[in-house]
Amino acid sequence: MHVVVNAATSVDGKLSTREREQVAISGPADFDRVDQVRADSDAVMVGVGTVLADDPSLTVDDEEQIPSRRGRGDTPHPARVVADSRGRTPPDAAILDDDAETVVLVSEAASADAIDRLEATGATVIVAGEGRVDLEAALAELEAHGIERLMVEGGGELIFSLFEASLVDELSVFVGPQIIGGRGAPTLADGDGFLTDFPDLELQAVDRLDDGVLLEWAVV
Amino acid sequence: MHVVVNAATSVDGKLSTREREQVAISGPADFDRVDQVRADSDAVMVGVGTVLADDPSLTVDDEEQIPSRRGRGDTPHPARVVADSRGRTPPDAAILDDDAETVVLVSEAASADAIDRLEATGATVIVAGEGRVDLEAALAELEAHGIERLMVEGGGELIFSLFEASLVDELSVFVGPQIIGGRGAPTLADGDGFLTDFPDLELQAVDRLDDGVLLEWAVV
Repeated sequence: MHVVVNAATSVDGKLSTREREQVAISGPADFDRVDQVRADSDAVMVGVGTVLADDPSLTVDDEEQIPSRRGRGDTPHPARVVADSRGRTPPDAAILDDDAETVVLVSEAASADAIDRLEATGATVIVAGEGRVDLEAALAELEAHGIERLMVEGGGELIFSLFEASLVDELSVFVGPQIIGGRGAPTLADGDGFLTDFPDLELQAVDRLDDGVLLEWAVV
Repeated sequence: MHVVVNAATSVDGKLSTREREQVAISGPADFDRVDQVRADSDAVMVGVGTVLADDPSLTVDDEEQIPSRRGRGDTPHPARVVADSRGRTPPDAAILDDDAETVVLVSEAASADAIDRLEATGATVIVAGEGRVDLEAALAELEAHGIERLMVEGGGELIFSLFEASLVDELSVFVGPQIIGGRGAPTLADGDGFLTDFPDLELQAVDRLDDGVLLEWAVV
């Protein structure tokens, strides 16, 4: 499986304000680029914190992408994946609508009721790990379901966990022209953080885009 | 006064680990660049958190810069400035040594004893603000002391406070090829954070440097 993390941050590395309010960081060129990465992916993944804060649908916006996906024998939209250890995704979340297939990754900490509620929406539930989702096992299971190219759109807790498990291949960051600030605001990589053995990246490309800059890194 | 903030962050916007351990983010080309910015400045400023965590001397490293500063009628090194509301800078801190002049900005919350201890090291103490340093008033006083060009080297609390007070003119960020992670790790701009009216930046230059990229922003 090839895992591409894609995110937009302020100059100070924030994904949103301390109240988790989204900030318009990207411009139209970056939106189009992100939509293209989605259209090229088999699945798009977020953490449950992002679902609760932003309620994204994660479907492809550009209608013209859909025939080309169909032409390749793909579904109109990539599958949506939520990392959701305790099964907290609300049944009326946009990510659980009928526009595309959805897989919810939970751990054994999710109650049978929570799993039933998710499955009742038509979602596929994969149980992996005890208290938290075992991402390595869960991604192996996604791969067994035919997901070869996985795009990850955040948030910072999921991105950190993926780096911690050495599961990231590429990281694309659009850095927008703002300062958000806030010691409690979500950043590109949260979690407990590394103290040693920081993941090393290799800069692949630097491009000015909209009013910011797109940095593309490979994980060494 | 012209205020230039200069910092090095990981790709996720961190200045150090959650334990405030410094990480080698910059390479030799960025070190040389930072030293040049120091040599071109009248003073170099940090917050007391940076003094306590890193004990920097903030003097110019490259001996060859010193004759050219003298040739301009300047002191061998720029002055050092600490923003230190309660006067917590330890008397044996490197920033208080005899290599250059030091100014400590405190608030009325600093005890007379703390001020005496600082002055006993030869430092100049400026009192501005009640509970916290009033940066606008303090920087006006520095300007009255002849400091026209002020370089700020962090940390994230001071940088946020300067943006909050609309005192920053330029921001240079070297983004190094690491992920540090950590929801508690210091970032480029901490403090309470903005919820609206985010400072807008304009991208002036993008340059690959060492294994990372230098982003130079002007504050609009």
